Amino acid sequence: MTGNTKAPSKFGVLIFPGFEPLDVFGPVEALQMLSREVKLDITWIGPTLAPVSTAPKDIEMNTTGSLIDTRVVPTHTYDNPPKDLEVLLVPGGMGALAEVPTSAAPVSFIEKTYPKLKYLITICNGVELAARAGVLDGKRATGNKDTWKTTIAVRPQVHWVRVARYVVDGNCWTSGGVSAGIDATLAWIAHVYGEEVARKGANFMEYEWRDDRNWDPFAYIFGAEV
Amino acid sequence: MTGNTKAPSKFGVLIFPGFEPLDVFGPVEALQMLSREVKLDITWIGPTLAPVSTAPKDIEMNTTGSLIDTRVVPTHTYDNPPKDLEVLLVPGGMGALAEVPTSAAPVSFIEKTYPKLKYLITICNGVELAARAGVLDGKRATGNKDTWKTTIAVRPQVHWVRVARYVVDGNCWTSGGVSAGIDATLAWIAHVYGEEVARKGANFMEYEWRDDRNWDPFAYIFGAEV
Repeated sequence: MTGNTKAPSKFGVLIFPGFEPLDVFGPVEALQMLSREVKLDITWIGPTLAPVSTAPKDIEMNTTGSLIDTRVVPTHTYDNPPKDLEVLLVPGGMGALAEVPTSAAPVSFIEKTYPKLKYLITICNGVELAARAGVLDGKRATGNKDTWKTTIAVRPQVHWVRVARYVVDGNCWTSGGVSAGIDATLAWIAHVYGEEVARKGANFMEYEWRDDRNWDPFAYIFGAEV
Repeated sequence: MTGNTKAPSKFGVLIFPGFEPLDVFGPVEALQMLSREVKLDITWIGPTLAPVSTAPKDIEMNTTGSLIDTRVVPTHTYDNPPKDLEVLLVPGGMGALAEVPTSAAPVSFIEKTYPKLKYLITICNGVELAARAGVLDGKRATGNKDTWKTTIAVRPQVHWVRVARYVVDGNCWTSGGVSAGIDATLAWIAHVYGEEVARKGANFMEYEWRDDRNWDPFAYIFGAEV
């Protein structure tokens, strides 16, 4: 826990071109369930107020030429975020890769914002954005397992934990790939608001919550790449 | 299977004010994974082209006064949908309840569109919209379990199946609450594109796919309400 004992209620979701939809919509669903019990603010922070697409910007990342144009509208921008932000959710996706130029701005935003936060929650390779911002140096962290080697190469100063559904170190909660963000967020809700409200939310979501942070078959499924 | 042996690739997500985010973003994530293998179109169909919010329109449904303003941008409208739509995904949420006036338009859209579709996939109480459109009459169907009594009362002509993660009858795939839509969509992908590509997508999503349609602990968890 942080020094402040008041449970945080001001959430921001960091979005950028090519973010992975379920990385955030799983956790946001858990928060929306929580909002039935507790007054919460859920804000969306983008590069500008223009809708942000989950489509990979780089055409080479869309090898089949599929039409993927799921767009979410930011409520705030990196330059003008909510002033009282307490918890920042950071998704991954192809747009989070270091080789994608637009991934630099969310890294700067995390670097500038982290010192004011009560909690940072990353999902999937969103951990790479936080790692690049330097805020995970010396901390234990995890990420998605299919691109594990790429992820850990981004920042050797992080103590990378390969077999984990999610990892908690201080106020940093980092989760495995995509769906793992739901388990991490439910565990975070249990940690802050209590087990009962987290379980209630999981049940309303009809989600089979894995509340063992060491449960991780995907580390084995993708183990050949290590 | 329908008469056409060509696998469908034109997907539409029906959205309306107060739709449940994970109901569609779980299935859409599965489709986005599939789009790495197959050329797909994923479109978003709303009342107008204005962004559609997941916030319940009725203030009485937001008892804590939380700020929930997650907005998704439609690519098409009910009046001007994609002409070659093959698969329609229908989420639930508070905005799908019969008592909410804006739920009438998606019902009309389903009624008008269903005859041209190859497949209809409903998630959670989205099944109520399809049931009200009459397209499930005489068919087996399921929905979310916490409001089961309300759901089945909407349309007695449907053969409601209470204990089911998802139900398939003809070209109608109906799933249980929220997360169940992911299992139904993965099963649908396996049915149409094969088990291997579905499993690959589930693994990339690091999602513990329940491919047994009869697996449903939530029917028991919420059983007291039956």
